[in-house]
Amino acid sequence: MDKLYVIKVGGNILDDEKALETFLKNFASIESKKILVHGGGKLANRLAEQLDLPQQMVDGRRITDAETLKIVVMVYAGLINKSIVALLQSLHTNAIGLSGADANCIVAHKRIVSGTDYGFAGDVDQVTTGFIRSVLENKITPVMAPITHDGKGQLLNTNADTMARELALALTETYDVELVYLFEKAGVLTNVDDEGSVISKLDLELFEKMKKKQLVHSGMLPKLENAFAALDKGVQKIYIGAAGNLPDILQGNAGTCITS
Amino acid sequence: MDKLYVIKVGGNILDDEKALETFLKNFASIESKKILVHGGGKLANRLAEQLDLPQQMVDGRRITDAETLKIVVMVYAGLINKSIVALLQSLHTNAIGLSGADANCIVAHKRIVSGTDYGFAGDVDQVTTGFIRSVLENKITPVMAPITHDGKGQLLNTNADTMARELALALTETYDVELVYLFEKAGVLTNVDDEGSVISKLDLELFEKMKKKQLVHSGMLPKLENAFAALDKGVQKIYIGAAGNLPDILQGNAGTCITS
Repeated sequence: MDKLYVIKVGGNILDDEKALETFLKNFASIESKKILVHGGGKLANRLAEQLDLPQQMVDGRRITDAETLKIVVMVYAGLINKSIVALLQSLHTNAIGLSGADANCIVAHKRIVSGTDYGFAGDVDQVTTGFIRSVLENKITPVMAPITHDGKGQLLNTNADTMARELALALTETYDVELVYLFEKAGVLTNVDDEGSVISKLDLELFEKMKKKQLVHSGMLPKLENAFAALDKGVQKIYIGAAGNLPDILQGNAGTCITS
Repeated sequence: MDKLYVIKVGGNILDDEKALETFLKNFASIESKKILVHGGGKLANRLAEQLDLPQQMVDGRRITDAETLKIVVMVYAGLINKSIVALLQSLHTNAIGLSGADANCIVAHKRIVSGTDYGFAGDVDQVTTGFIRSVLENKITPVMAPITHDGKGQLLNTNADTMARELALALTETYDVELVYLFEKAGVLTNVDDEGSVISKLDLELFEKMKKKQLVHSGMLPKLENAFAALDKGVQKIYIGAAGNLPDILQGNAGTCITS
């Protein structure tokens, strides 16, 4: 099977023109098949502020009322998605920007959690891979905005980390999938205040030991639980590290490489 | 050759939820291959107003400075495009939203007109049809936002009428293309104040006669000159009429049908 990287980039990088350019150059130079999943919460927050629309987060998830949904659709599926696609084209990487509604790729349902109304926030039900596979086989790189739909005409705001994982899982039947989470930290740290304390290789045995010794930072715990669940379902490797280090991360010279 | 409708819808319909729903139902029920090209100037104007960004139009074209470009990319390629795609999915029409940057479909250059700086407004250089054809052959309906790119990383704001025409022309090699312009009026009128004065069939001979008698409204003149030029280059028919009358227009029972 061909190798496929599903790479999620989020947060700060999208707000820093120079860092974004460097990141996209590194991304474009990956020779294997690849999918980019992006976030963009910071830019959405800024537009919401300009429009005097207060934003509310619960457990790291955005409460998405009708007006907030418009903002995230505009910012994620419009501004950020198309800007990235145009930059990739200039780097001779033929890219296509997609939301989950496009070609019916990703169907979700409105999140139902007792006690909290998340509004138009969507949890993924199904990834249909046919179109994405045909795009990849035609040497076109999908760039995914974290917006899905419910099949009944409603767009939904979906967590980009989750979208990347669901895409990765759905594509394991066709490709050797490696999932890459890029964020602000250098990787999984044993000391959250020390960027030098990156664990370069993490497997389930070490993870269990670290959990027992309470060495896993609470913010990292659900990410890692999710990572091991994805490995269990067929993803080959998961990398976690800083967006600026992408080439080194993929060569095992930076960040954390997680295997079962 | 298969028939292909390229249908441009603009202006008011996108701002009227019920009219949009009816239009999309009619659009979805077209059995032939079809492409939808949409505008969205009104919604862009509203967002610009909310953000206190004055808009300037010259000869019907928007002066697109950097901040205005962000607005049109968000509104056209984000909000309007994805809302239409989600609604079409709910009508069992598998659709995909695209800008000209996606899959490198439409390359444009920054408009250069002596005397007026239109900013990031793009005139179309090239439509590459391979991806769009493969989408159509896979029974997926492209929904095109009037945003293009210059191949060097810059997104550009492009007139939706022009985009529809350029798409139609580029696809005449593969399909029997009929181009449909939907707007607020019932069709080409002999009396601009009388919606009952629709000319149902217009050919070049009649058009020349009408021009001599100064019966063509000045706002309609460039549209019709463009229409006859498109017919000359291989488009089979051009329809002009009100969005609400789409089924009747395609059956020759409403609007204006233009042939050479």
